[in-house]
Order: sequence, then C-alpha cells, then structure tokens
Amino acid sequence: MKALRVHKKRLSLRNIDKPEPGGEALVRVLLSGICNTDLEIARGYAGFSGTIGHEFVGIVEETDDNQLLGRRVVGEINAGCGRCALCRSGDPRHCASRTVLGIVGRDGAHAEYLRLPTLNLIPVPAKIADEHAVFTEPLAAACGILERVSISKTDRVAVIGDGKLGLLSAQVVTLTGAETVAIGKHPNKLKIAARRGIETLTAKQAAKRIREFDVVVEASGSESGFALALNLLKPKGCLVLKSTFHGATEVEAARVVVDEISIIGSRCGRFAPALDLLKKDSIDVDSLISEEYPLSEGVHAMSRAGAKGILKVLLRP
Amino acid sequence: MKALRVHKKRLSLRNIDKPEPGGEALVRVLLSGICNTDLEIARGYAGFSGTIGHEFVGIVEETDDNQLLGRRVVGEINAGCGRCALCRSGDPRHCASRTVLGIVGRDGAHAEYLRLPTLNLIPVPAKIADEHAVFTEPLAAACGILERVSISKTDRVAVIGDGKLGLLSAQVVTLTGAETVAIGKHPNKLKIAARRGIETLTAKQAAKRIREFDVVVEASGSESGFALALNLLKPKGCLVLKSTFHGATEVEAARVVVDEISIIGSRCGRFAPALDLLKKDSIDVDSLISEEYPLSEGVHAMSRAGAKGILKVLLRP
Repeated sequence: MKALRVHKKRLSLRNIDKPEPGGEALVRVLLSGICNTDLEIARGYAGFSGTIGHEFVGIVEETDDNQLLGRRVVGEINAGCGRCALCRSGDPRHCASRTVLGIVGRDGAHAEYLRLPTLNLIPVPAKIADEHAVFTEPLAAACGILERVSISKTDRVAVIGDGKLGLLSAQVVTLTGAETVAIGKHPNKLKIAARRGIETLTAKQAAKRIREFDVVVEASGSESGFALALNLLKPKGCLVLKSTFHGATEVEAARVVVDEISIIGSRCGRFAPALDLLKKDSIDVDSLISEEYPLSEGVHAMSRAGAKGILKVLLRP
Repeated sequence: MKALRVHKKRLSLRNIDKPEPGGEALVRVLLSGICNTDLEIARGYAGFSGTIGHEFVGIVEETDDNQLLGRRVVGEINAGCGRCALCRSGDPRHCASRTVLGIVGRDGAHAEYLRLPTLNLIPVPAKIADEHAVFTEPLAAACGILERVSISKTDRVAVIGDGKLGLLSAQVVTLTGAETVAIGKHPNKLKIAARRGIETLTAKQAAKRIREFDVVVEASGSESGFALALNLLKPKGCLVLKSTFHGATEVEAARVVVDEISIIGSRCGRFAPALDLLKKDSIDVDSLISEEYPLSEGVHAMSRAGAKGILKVLLRP
C-alpha cells in the first residue's frame, strides 16, 4: 500500500506492506488531514520514523468487534498501555508508555490503511460528511480547551493565531457565549472567524487591549504570541497554551507571580464533544479546507500545507 | 523618626518626619521583618524610592476607628483605589492603581511609624507574640498557595526552596494532610522542615523523583528550581510559582502543552488564615528567626539578611 513516510528527516511516498491487525483493528483510510505537527515531524520533531498523519476518517475492515466491522470511524490517537493508573481511569492520553498515531511509535494515517486499538475507534454519524469527520481530531483538541479551563458567558476571551487550530478554537470558545476575539495576521483567515460573529483584530490592534481578557488562548505557536497573551490578560487571568511550539520560550516569571496568572497547557481533547458539534453543524470547517490531493501526491501536499495562506490540506488514498 | 530608605539603589538610615495619617491610620511599629523583596528593592527592583519594609506588627496610635485605637495590629500591604471592580469585590490585591507598603508608591514598615488605610489593619490576638505576629504577611503568602490550587490528602506535593518562603510553604502544605517533600540545598534549613515531619531532599536526590508529584511549589526563585519543578510533575500536574524572581526565565513550552501542566502564579494571601495558624501555634516560625537588630542598625541588618545561611532578620525600632 502507499504511505507517506518520514525517515531521518526525509519525507517520501513509499510502497509498504498493508499492516497486520495483530489484535487491533484494521482501518481503510477514506481521507486524512495534514496537521502542523506533521510538518514539524517531517523536520525532525519527536524523532519519529514511519508513516505520519493522525487526522483521518476510515472504514473498519478487520476487528474482533462485530459492532464496528464495516463502520465508518474516526480514532483517538493515543494508545495507552491499558494497565497504568491513567489508562485504568479511562484517560490514556498521558500514559507514559503510550504510542501516538503517526507521532510516537506507531504508523499513522497518511496511508491506505492504518491500525489502532478497537477501543480507540468511534463510529461517525451518517450525517457527517467525510470532509467534516476528518476534522474530528483537531476539533477535539480545540474542545479540549474547555476540559482545562471553565469559560462562562461573562468572560472575555481572546484567541491568538488565525491558523487551523486558532480558527477552530475561536469557534469553540464563542459557542460558550463568552465574548470572543480572534487575533491574527491574515485578513483572509480572520474572515472565517468574523463570519461566525467573532470580533477580529490584527496583532497591532490587539496590543492596545492590555489587561482586558479573562482567558487568552495561544494558538499561534510563536514567541510573540506568548508575550502578547500575557499582556492581554487581566490579573488572575488564564493563558491556555494550545500550540506545541518548540525550543525554550522566555517567560517573564515575575509578571506571572505578581498578576497571579495561570498558564494552562492543553493538548488532545475527547472526540465525543467534537463529533457532536460536527453533527449539529455548529462549526464551519468547510472554510478551513484549502486543497485536496491524492495520497500519491503526498510529498507535494505537505509542501503546500506549509505554504503561506494555506489552511487544511486533505489527502485521499 | 528613623526610617530605612532606598533612593536610586542606595540604602540608608534617615531621620524623616513622622507620617501624617491623612485619613488613614497611624501605626507605631513594634517589630518589622526583612523579606527577600526588600533586598531586591534595594538593588533597584520596582524602581521604588522611599522607606522599605512590608512585614510588621505595631500599635494603632491614630485612627477614625475607635475599635482599633491602641490595638496591636498587622496590616494587609495592598491599598486599592476602593472604586474599581476588584476593590469593590473586596480584593484590592490586584487593583491597577494600588499602592503597596514599602514596594509601590507608599512608605513602608522599617521605620518607627507607618500609615495604612484603617481597612487594611487586623487586630492580633493577645496569644500571638510580636515575634510571631511579624510573620503574618509572609505566612499569608504561603497560605495563598491554597487560594490558588486545591490540595487534597491524596496529593503528593514538593516544595522547592529552603528559604523563608519555602519553609513556610512546606509547613502550610503539610497541614493539608498531603504527602509533602521539601527540597533545598541547605541541610540546616531543611532540618526545620524535617522537624515538622516533612520529608527533605537535596536537589540532587530530588532529580531522581521524575513525574512523581501532583503539585510542585517553586519557592527558590532560581531558574534551576523552575526546570526541576517541571521534571518533578506528573502529567496534568500543577506548578505553583511563589517567587518573584526577575528577568526572563526559559520555559520549555512544548512540555507544558504535551503534559498539560498548569503553571499558577501566587503572590499575596489573605491574613486571616495566617493569624489563625499562628494563634494555634501550628507553624514553627521561631526556627526561622536568625537575628534581630535595632532599626538604627538597619543597613547592617539588610546585609546580614542577604548573607549565606541566614533566614529571617528582624528590626526593632
């Protein structure tokens, strides 16, 4: 089968054997989505070798679970050991021995087939198109903000970053009823938020809104975004870090202490709330789709995904 | 009156006029305590000019409030504008226009007299000696940890730093019933914690306790303490930043996101819980008193407070 693989920072489309289920489920991929993490992995982040990709929708072709056989599914990307305290509490997302689809120790979704534990698979309601279902994982990550910080209608929330994650996050936050502001550098991308009734600001405009926000979501992955976030927060405000940007970031620790700021890391979210939002058509994901390529053009698609002005790039095996 | 003052990074004992109450209360200082913040202010932090010091116990000599006249008091150090939303909600600690005793725009406690709004003053129960009451402010700061993060009996908590704030914090935390570990570099200081039944570790020993703690309190004010704190935390753990160390600190933001860490700034605390602990004699503050000097020797006392192995230095006007 075809698979988009990374080995020693080199990206290539390869023909490899179809995976053996080996006690897990075999899924035929219908559509996969390129995430910024894929671009970072291709540059060497996490030292991953293998098939990349962790956003997908597919059909279960082999499984022990008759209920799932033949069903269209999406899949939670963290596969825990099943034995540690975290796994036993039903949350393998932080299992120290976990593998992660296309990120840690497990071949990923930019391929014709993938395998995942049956437990990770969640059927997709018929109402949700493949092109929407493929957003379940990144939308779950945006919904994960609400697992980590409570946002009420009286809060003022700023989302920094007008990339895919920022635009999904702003849409999720505004559904809470909180006054939501999206901050970015790209007028065309900000328009997607504006069409959902979200106020939009350039970084320059935002720099004047010092200490106005109860919660700031940093989804730009840039050091300047981090510094802006601290400036926008009210005392006792909450900065949600969504982007896994790399290297060390300089933080003015005294400011965090004096203003009693909370900095809250947020990574993956649960899939159920995301599927629910997609089913109710509450999130505009169509506007986030920039381009689609056949998997055979995966290497080119990856370069397009990193190009200026591009949001989501999809791959179809 | 005598007052220990800072002007353009120069510390000196001066004779100045006794303050006019001007609508506030006039307090005759019985005893004041030197805080690390005083040392930092003397080095130029916060650009403060005036009388330093914010830890004190004293006698109210002038006030509109007959209930307080002649009473022995301690005082909350933040004086808010009284009009903004924060002040109206009863918490002037983050009022943007606040003055802070001996830190921001208001002469402090290393003097024969000070003034503070009557509202800031809290009578000290007779049972509490002056030498204990003078610890109310730093103990309130330690108690402030519990205002910012909930700690339960099943939690494992590490406190990094065996200075005054670290030793007070470890004692406050262990009273919650949580398994508490104090980490420091000074065996003599760690013994104070050990006598309260707190496990003690050197930084080297602590470095082996990777991902064991639910909560880590950083009270060392050093960058190495910050890095150690992140390593000690379990996924979804909580790092409480207590020390107002200065300059930028490097933070591995990806780690905060991937492990979904919370970094919680904590500064001042409310005085009532601290007075309650002192009244019940639940905290060993005696062991924290290293030396006492007359106020007239304030400049020397400040140099002693910064010397190796020294904990609290008290000044008596």
